[in-house]
Amino acid sequence: MAQQKRSDLTFNISKFDNFGAWYEEILQLAEVVDKRTTMKGVYVMPPYGCFMHNATMRAVEDAWVEQDIMHANFPTLIPETLLSAESGHFAGFVPEVFWVTKGGNSDLNPKLALRPTSETIIYSTFANWVQSHRDLPLKVQQTCQVFRCETKDTSPLIRSREILWNEAHCAHATAEESAEQCRGYWVGYKHVFEDILNVTGLYIRRPLWDTFPGADYTDVLDIILPNGKVMQSASTHFLGQGFANLFGVKFSDTEQTPADKQKELIAAQKAAKKAKQQEKKQKKGDKKEGESEPAPAEEEKQEPTEEVVIDHRKAAWMSCAGISTRCVASVICVHGDDNGLVLPTAAAPFQIIIIPILRGKADQDKPVIEFSQTVQQILKKAGIRVRIDDGPGKPGPKFFHWEMKGVPCRIEIGQRDMSQNSVCCVFRDQTKDDKFNIPIADEAGSNAGFIGRIREEFARFDERLHKKAIEFQTSHIEKFLEKEQKGETVTIDEIRKTLGLDTYNPTDKNADKYPRFDLSKPTVFRVPFISVGHDGKEPEAILRAATGLEIRGYDPNEALPAEGVKCIVTGQQATRYVYCARAM
Amino acid sequence: MAQQKRSDLTFNISKFDNFGAWYEEILQLAEVVDKRTTMKGVYVMPPYGCFMHNATMRAVEDAWVEQDIMHANFPTLIPETLLSAESGHFAGFVPEVFWVTKGGNSDLNPKLALRPTSETIIYSTFANWVQSHRDLPLKVQQTCQVFRCETKDTSPLIRSREILWNEAHCAHATAEESAEQCRGYWVGYKHVFEDILNVTGLYIRRPLWDTFPGADYTDVLDIILPNGKVMQSASTHFLGQGFANLFGVKFSDTEQTPADKQKELIAAQKAAKKAKQQEKKQKKGDKKEGESEPAPAEEEKQEPTEEVVIDHRKAAWMSCAGISTRCVASVICVHGDDNGLVLPTAAAPFQIIIIPILRGKADQDKPVIEFSQTVQQILKKAGIRVRIDDGPGKPGPKFFHWEMKGVPCRIEIGQRDMSQNSVCCVFRDQTKDDKFNIPIADEAGSNAGFIGRIREEFARFDERLHKKAIEFQTSHIEKFLEKEQKGETVTIDEIRKTLGLDTYNPTDKNADKYPRFDLSKPTVFRVPFISVGHDGKEPEAILRAATGLEIRGYDPNEALPAEGVKCIVTGQQATRYVYCARAM
Repeated sequence: MAQQKRSDLTFNISKFDNFGAWYEEILQLAEVVDKRTTMKGVYVMPPYGCFMHNATMRAVEDAWVEQDIMHANFPTLIPETLLSAESGHFAGFVPEVFWVTKGGNSDLNPKLALRPTSETIIYSTFANWVQSHRDLPLKVQQTCQVFRCETKDTSPLIRSREILWNEAHCAHATAEESAEQCRGYWVGYKHVFEDILNVTGLYIRRPLWDTFPGADYTDVLDIILPNGKVMQSASTHFLGQGFANLFGVKFSDTEQTPADKQKELIAAQKAAKKAKQQEKKQKKGDKKEGESEPAPAEEEKQEPTEEVVIDHRKAAWMSCAGISTRCVASVICVHGDDNGLVLPTAAAPFQIIIIPILRGKADQDKPVIEFSQTVQQILKKAGIRVRIDDGPGKPGPKFFHWEMKGVPCRIEIGQRDMSQNSVCCVFRDQTKDDKFNIPIADEAGSNAGFIGRIREEFARFDERLHKKAIEFQTSHIEKFLEKEQKGETVTIDEIRKTLGLDTYNPTDKNADKYPRFDLSKPTVFRVPFISVGHDGKEPEAILRAATGLEIRGYDPNEALPAEGVKCIVTGQQATRYVYCARAM
Repeated sequence: MAQQKRSDLTFNISKFDNFGAWYEEILQLAEVVDKRTTMKGVYVMPPYGCFMHNATMRAVEDAWVEQDIMHANFPTLIPETLLSAESGHFAGFVPEVFWVTKGGNSDLNPKLALRPTSETIIYSTFANWVQSHRDLPLKVQQTCQVFRCETKDTSPLIRSREILWNEAHCAHATAEESAEQCRGYWVGYKHVFEDILNVTGLYIRRPLWDTFPGADYTDVLDIILPNGKVMQSASTHFLGQGFANLFGVKFSDTEQTPADKQKELIAAQKAAKKAKQQEKKQKKGDKKEGESEPAPAEEEKQEPTEEVVIDHRKAAWMSCAGISTRCVASVICVHGDDNGLVLPTAAAPFQIIIIPILRGKADQDKPVIEFSQTVQQILKKAGIRVRIDDGPGKPGPKFFHWEMKGVPCRIEIGQRDMSQNSVCCVFRDQTKDDKFNIPIADEAGSNAGFIGRIREEFARFDERLHKKAIEFQTSHIEKFLEKEQKGETVTIDEIRKTLGLDTYNPTDKNADKYPRFDLSKPTVFRVPFISVGHDGKEPEAILRAATGLEIRGYDPNEALPAEGVKCIVTGQQATRYVYCARAM
């Protein structure tokens, strides 16, 4: 009965049974995203959602500043002429580029691209900033938006036409430093996802055929969504020297600037020429007087000076990293439940909602409201984000409303709490049976114990979210470890059976090609595979056709398959364990 | 001799004699803005400049959050169809709008505008968010960029095509609250400019003919630049109810939502109808059986329900505020000197530069470098932004370099300083004669005194900058107070004389229409004027033709001119004191 009443009053959609509807509806209802005003694939972010997004971006920005990756700002509008320099990389984005062709009523020539990604403008600027090895490492970040005219299904925070993101770009003098930076990116991202947002995922390297255009390798974080599919939530790219050569991000590794070097070369060249001329003169001494002799100046002109000015500069090693609103989407998808959002304390606009339990009698209610305001002040002073809901209406609907909004902690304050100088707390992931009271002051009147306890409970709550996220992930990845210990070979049929593909036979033409995942079983599989190089692409196609799963990547730090461990597709010796999953 | 050597080594342009060149060159040299890479009017902001810009924006953002103006995010791309709703306001921007007409290779229909300002998208969203008076006040801000295809001269940070700014937009239930918010904006802006950035300016209200399109009144901050002209550096607009009516930002001022109200109205209407029908039936009782009778359902359909559903909602009162990179431009222009930037401590990427005085002998230099690093750590731990320059080169050029960059405090550390466990400080606005030593620890080994002293000196430095800025402004505004006390009338000729216009007679066709300001004299004039309403526009044109000055605005809090004080142009009774100046 209580449950039934609840569903009338508030959000109640099964996250696991109906993830699509759950996601779309909770975003609008909890005021994370508003898609009413504008066009397909473009969203308004109300204050509630914007706080969450800014909190995640700020966490990333701070992690980068910690690594000396400094904020910089690069333009949104890129002239077409600048793009042509790197047509190879840019070509992949062309079908998605928004073009500005008019300014007022005039045609623009060249037309301007809205950046689909910022490599072009950033690396052509790096070419100006890098001269000597002392200019390296050069490390910048910007939190901005990029634009892609998505033709696929758009989805708020996940696939949009105006993507809000943070991108980091670094240039280093050596491959080792650049690779170290790529590991550094993951120190930062892991900190943000695991420590701050209590989310987990698969940290993997994409197979070669699925690498970012122009990159030597691409590392990503794939999150397992409530529907069993995976979503890429952050990525980093080791770019090698390709972009540096393309854009001229080059450095001299002596103390000299290239200009100094050039001066020196020209001086050496002149000295050599002078010696040559003196040699010639001596020879000419034998000729008759009056014979024409070419003017030295002219001879100098004929000599091509360019040939000897060699570019001794080295190309820098580049890397980049990107993270978007998918970070917030991950938080929402991983922690949410059937009654709405569940927010980790770091991303919650309000960490505590105080609800005074009122009786509708002004003389009795007034002291309760005042006491509630005192509690709010104590918490606020300690830097805790807290709001009080003393508006009209009964406590029940208020409870459900703020549960739907995902507020980590609810504090209820009634007559009795007030008389005991304490508050009643219940956390978002627990039920009313788990309620507990905390006194707001000790005998000496200090609130330190109250604040300390609240912070402790925040930490416990965040830990519980993290634990739950890890458990969900672990229970949905099948690694076939037992089989492997027994020396048995993992087969495609086995995966088909787990996914119910062996019995799936859609008679309806409109049915999905693959059945929905049974979430009581694994949906992601780690299997031995022949190769993550380009020669793995064909075997992957076979796996994909049979199971609907694609190879998302591998853990580069994982031990390689032992001698005799066979590829799930070809039956030949496997060279890597790879993760297979269905992409969102 | 020392001076001559200096000019070879570093930046040296007279800010007052050659402001244009000074500004352009210092921006590039100090790495505030880089205009090499891209197109006219679009700039890259390197880390140094970006830090300064972000520091100013962060200060504004924090001031708004303090006033419960929360971050939100609205799209950059606005479909043309949405713009047509408010053609009146938008018309003014049309000549400057960048239009996106293509996505990939396809034409877009409708075409999309890059927002030239965000009223359209924000207020049409507000219309969805505001239902009841409980939804008010609604207060949002965003730090973003707007785009204007400037045809006038562009200038970095001042007039660009991609404008980085922070905008705040608020809706209130009453005119009083909205006006109070407008005053609140200025509490915030004044705090940022005066307290944090140590800049000052004229806080004035624009005359009616120079008000933002759609606003009832516009308040601005005009900064006096080193060339004597003024630059608008922030603005706020009291928008009244015009936009709210246009976009439908309306609220019900009872506890009921409009939906509730509508339900109630329909119920009342049905009850009335039922009573009417029963009345009719009684009358029909007299008719013969079998006579046709219209079905009640049909009768219901015919009755127009719309007429009784009256919109009892009230339009909200709106206001907005905006501040851009001109904020950083103000800091640079107001505080800089002939040797480069002078940055207030809050905007400085590095507040202290430590320069170890090295002798080129590794064994002697190593302990000095180590001691310098210790000092750096102590400062860093206290949250002070500090950098150490232990690169190659002599101290002199390093001093000049970091002076050019505007670093507030330089710490020199040599052998003797180290042996005394102290450092030698010199601030950017002082000379080497003002150098002073501070011990880095007391006898008990505590650094608290050192840090305390550094902070104290920071505060003194900031105060000196502020004082200097106020003095510059005061000495460049002529208020004609003496004349007024004597009851004398201020004349246009007097201003012409001060500006040297009486003797200016350019024979060269290419000469400027007006002579350059003599900066030893006032360049801004406060004069009694006939009206700041539309009827003041013609007299202003006369003033402008005679002096080259325009009326920038008036202080709405200033006492009105006394009886008998005459307008500088018409000689009639003045109604306001206005500020006249040349716009940048």
